[in-house]
Amino acid sequence: MTQLSKTHYFTDFFLPNPLVLESGQTLGPITIAYETYGTLNPQKNNAILICHALSGDAHVAFGHEQNHEYIGWWDFMVGPGKPIDTNRYFVVCSNVIGGCKGSTGPSSINPETQQPYGASFPVITIGDMVHAQKKLLDYLGIVELKMVIGGSMGGMQALEWAILYPDLIKSCVPVASTTKLSPQALAFDVVGQQAIMVDPKWQHGHYADPPEKGLSIARMIGHITYLSDEAMHEKFGRKLQKKMDYGYDFSTDFQIESYLKYQGDKFVNRFDANSYLYITKAIDYFDLGKKYGNLDKAFQNSKSKFLVISITTDWLYRPSESKTLVHTLMRLNKPVTYAELDLPFGHDGFLIENDAIKDCVSSFLENV
Amino acid sequence: MTQLSKTHYFTDFFLPNPLVLESGQTLGPITIAYETYGTLNPQKNNAILICHALSGDAHVAFGHEQNHEYIGWWDFMVGPGKPIDTNRYFVVCSNVIGGCKGSTGPSSINPETQQPYGASFPVITIGDMVHAQKKLLDYLGIVELKMVIGGSMGGMQALEWAILYPDLIKSCVPVASTTKLSPQALAFDVVGQQAIMVDPKWQHGHYADPPEKGLSIARMIGHITYLSDEAMHEKFGRKLQKKMDYGYDFSTDFQIESYLKYQGDKFVNRFDANSYLYITKAIDYFDLGKKYGNLDKAFQNSKSKFLVISITTDWLYRPSESKTLVHTLMRLNKPVTYAELDLPFGHDGFLIENDAIKDCVSSFLENV
Repeated sequence: MTQLSKTHYFTDFFLPNPLVLESGQTLGPITIAYETYGTLNPQKNNAILICHALSGDAHVAFGHEQNHEYIGWWDFMVGPGKPIDTNRYFVVCSNVIGGCKGSTGPSSINPETQQPYGASFPVITIGDMVHAQKKLLDYLGIVELKMVIGGSMGGMQALEWAILYPDLIKSCVPVASTTKLSPQALAFDVVGQQAIMVDPKWQHGHYADPPEKGLSIARMIGHITYLSDEAMHEKFGRKLQKKMDYGYDFSTDFQIESYLKYQGDKFVNRFDANSYLYITKAIDYFDLGKKYGNLDKAFQNSKSKFLVISITTDWLYRPSESKTLVHTLMRLNKPVTYAELDLPFGHDGFLIENDAIKDCVSSFLENV
Repeated sequence: MTQLSKTHYFTDFFLPNPLVLESGQTLGPITIAYETYGTLNPQKNNAILICHALSGDAHVAFGHEQNHEYIGWWDFMVGPGKPIDTNRYFVVCSNVIGGCKGSTGPSSINPETQQPYGASFPVITIGDMVHAQKKLLDYLGIVELKMVIGGSMGGMQALEWAILYPDLIKSCVPVASTTKLSPQALAFDVVGQQAIMVDPKWQHGHYADPPEKGLSIARMIGHITYLSDEAMHEKFGRKLQKKMDYGYDFSTDFQIESYLKYQGDKFVNRFDANSYLYITKAIDYFDLGKKYGNLDKAFQNSKSKFLVISITTDWLYRPSESKTLVHTLMRLNKPVTYAELDLPFGHDGFLIENDAIKDCVSSFLENV
């Protein structure tokens, strides 16, 4: 266990017994990389679980001691005196299985072969991610989650938590999330996956030299969908890159072009292409209505309070999808609050510091 | 000249002298593949020019005699008794320069080297396409265009026609078009171009074995943007492909996945990757406000009647962009009619037979 600051720890949890996955396959042993912030109270009921999105990890807040520049992805939300106050709550965030940030995923060594799993890694689901997190919480002795919260894919996990472990969850906060991808969002995922799989370096998922070009294309597609049209106008417009006029060649003309290429290039240095495939597949398969028969059946046994947050300009996981969830919960007489944040940023708005989301979560948490 | 039916001809026009391009480079000699339908009247003023979109060609109507299944891309609009009535009008449609459907483009043989141009082909603009078409109309002896019409990139050409040759154009009909790409539309183009250029088979634009994988990815991205979210829900939803449940692998799970892969695969058999790069670059560069100082200056000398048509569900070239054009034309006291067609199909709606567009164009044409 690495102590990163006074009450901030980074470590691995090792689960020796295989996990039975929703596909029927098994995966194990499993390592789960996680961080904790704050102190678990003696009643062990002041814990908050934060679930990360597609390209996130366990490092939700603070700078790493090894690398102070690496600030956690939700640092403006989590810390002493912040909306998720680590002076009061014991915050846990773990890397999802299938990921590449310390938890077992396709780039991990398969103990049976002593080779990376690669494409022999089993397809996992959002439910599988949650089941694995549950083992970690059991190990930590947590008997109640004050809140489970996450944005995008993190919100999917939060919803599965409220369904799968109703007695454990006091409140559930899906942010910029959905109960299933729209066909359009699904289509973008599919093309990103194809871009990786047609890269000759992918080698059917068993590569030593990673398919960086394909992964970069997938990330660029993703980035377009994470930004609102409004934000693109504001940030880039049609502004040219270091030139007064067009280059009349196929180098970089526009600033948006430079931005996307940079995002693509940067991503391949920190993410595994197979993890991208497996995690997006889990997102594609996520469909609570399909899994439980319909949305009413999915949530009928949940005992959580819900705060459903959407972003007006999010065209990937649209407010209308959050409203469908809210209507379901209202129909079931579940306590639910809906907040549609009027932010210009698009889907990624939950990752950009703003008072709207901070106030919304802190006031909700005060009343759980 | 190939006579395809009684008044339908398919042939090439050869322009021996090089064309000076907007970049300052020259291109030539140039071949322009074109089709004509109907008969030019003795006054030579009953001609209509139809401009095609990114992946279109000169074959706008009827079936080819060699291949009756290959129906023209706007057959429901063009023919005897149809909105663009070939009993009354002499219809011309030519493949754009830079294309790969008979006109000179990057896959053509460079007479200087006896090799395909490849990436040595000069970057061309929408204006260059129009200047080349003008040479063809001169050759055909056309002294007036009753109408110039086109959808998407075809609409961009129509607008340039109204600006560059104001005395020739009686009416101009841009359909689902814009005076410049939005940053988001630009971003999608950029990623498609990158997908082609990172394909190892692209070989910096000089390939014998074409970069089919990259082109297929580019086409898939395009197809998502051509369809509305509504149309995707309607056509595919989250329906699975020949399976009762998920496959838990990386083969094809969803119908939308199968559709996109099919569209990608089909496209590489009929389109050249470099042409895709050059044509999308021309689209990216199209910006009438930038080129002429502002939109008012661009259209101040035009003498056309305008019919500007947009599609409610087109999120690639949005109705708001057509409205900006309409407001400009109104400010300049140009005769303009605006029609926003309430169609569910998205950007590609102009290619799908519907009464709205047929009625709109035929009644407008009646009053030119």
